[in-house]
Amino acid sequence: MTNPTAAMLVIGDEILSGRTRDSNMHYLAGELTRIGIRLAEVRVVPDDSAAIVAGVNALRTAYDTVFTSGGIGPTHDDITADSIAAAFGVPISHRADAMALLAAHYDRQGLPFNEARQRMARIPEGARLIDNPVSIAPGFSLGNVHVMAGVPTIFQAMVASVLPGLTGGPPLLSQTLRVMRGEGEIAADFGALAAAFPELQMGSYPFSLNGAYGTNLVIRGTDPARLDAAMTRLCRLFA
Amino acid sequence: MTNPTAAMLVIGDEILSGRTRDSNMHYLAGELTRIGIRLAEVRVVPDDSAAIVAGVNALRTAYDTVFTSGGIGPTHDDITADSIAAAFGVPISHRADAMALLAAHYDRQGLPFNEARQRMARIPEGARLIDNPVSIAPGFSLGNVHVMAGVPTIFQAMVASVLPGLTGGPPLLSQTLRVMRGEGEIAADFGALAAAFPELQMGSYPFSLNGAYGTNLVIRGTDPARLDAAMTRLCRLFA
Repeated sequence: MTNPTAAMLVIGDEILSGRTRDSNMHYLAGELTRIGIRLAEVRVVPDDSAAIVAGVNALRTAYDTVFTSGGIGPTHDDITADSIAAAFGVPISHRADAMALLAAHYDRQGLPFNEARQRMARIPEGARLIDNPVSIAPGFSLGNVHVMAGVPTIFQAMVASVLPGLTGGPPLLSQTLRVMRGEGEIAADFGALAAAFPELQMGSYPFSLNGAYGTNLVIRGTDPARLDAAMTRLCRLFA
Repeated sequence: MTNPTAAMLVIGDEILSGRTRDSNMHYLAGELTRIGIRLAEVRVVPDDSAAIVAGVNALRTAYDTVFTSGGIGPTHDDITADSIAAAFGVPISHRADAMALLAAHYDRQGLPFNEARQRMARIPEGARLIDNPVSIAPGFSLGNVHVMAGVPTIFQAMVASVLPGLTGGPPLLSQTLRVMRGEGEIAADFGALAAAFPELQMGSYPFSLNGAYGTNLVIRGTDPARLDAAMTRLCRLFA
């Protein structure tokens, strides 16, 4: 049994210009790993329709599920919904259920439901809305693409809405052994161990602490018995 | 005069599994913006040769310069150098100058220059070495691709070695106005302003603070006079 794959398309000039540090990728990676979906690729593209269309079309054909973040607000630079519609070749318009949600929200707040705010009800034909408990304006799912806000609190709420509807695979387990030895010292034995367990992934991540070199040795896989067996041998080698 | 473009290929299972939060992308984005190079795309791929080859070949033909991070250490999972050689279709072997650098380094430390450590001297034919003042094992540049370590301190030192050799464009300037109004309230006027300055990029980034909505309005461009003119009008609208 293999794990389903996912990709993420981060849409945002603010990430590429260095103004903002993306945090959604790290959050999504952790959530997907937890439910046994393998995040296989992430792309970050600017607020540019051609780049979004090319990115989403490349990813949605290559992977089981795609998540996008960013560009679904009320301002002129929010072009994600239109770009997704273009990528799928479907029309986009103000949708009645999204309009109703937003109209009620702004009514409760005593704020005008103006043209800019109505823009957030523009949804490509055939999409399903993604609930936004934080600020109401919905995301949407079209085919295997889930289109979500870039603001981290809203992104996280939308991920929580979408994940229960996805089929995960066996849990992606990992175990880590931290050793105070440099990578060059453990490489031969660690490589031999990795070769003995081809169904597991083994990675080494060096660090330095107070001038001394250390390495985190990480073993990943889905078979708990094999993972334990490898970890036992790893500990015998280095711990 | 336009700005040169760059892309980044982040290589690492540890990022995609959610184990590690990437920080090199944000660092590189800031450094490139500072010297007038536009970071136009970032891709994150796993420790998989086919994925690295496909990523680097797509990016090096589409953009002026490509930076990679990760996978150039001594362990079995460090496959970046071989993958770059494969992407360019050139041989790779232990190079004499890199071997000499590393041999002297481990000799000074009183550590054996073993086979694993010698792996870090494997450099694709035709590459130029990138200096690594932190831990000696060099990165390399091949064509328009700069191959660097993933450990942030080393990545940053290698960026510092590479950037002076690149030709930047006019500075990518930005100014920000922070207003305590929601995006839906400022969208119409901000959009009209953006339309009046087509040579500038304008973006709005919402936040909430103590339950109130605010928006950062960012104007980016390379012409200081136009940027000032737009900022003056922006302040007149909202400040």
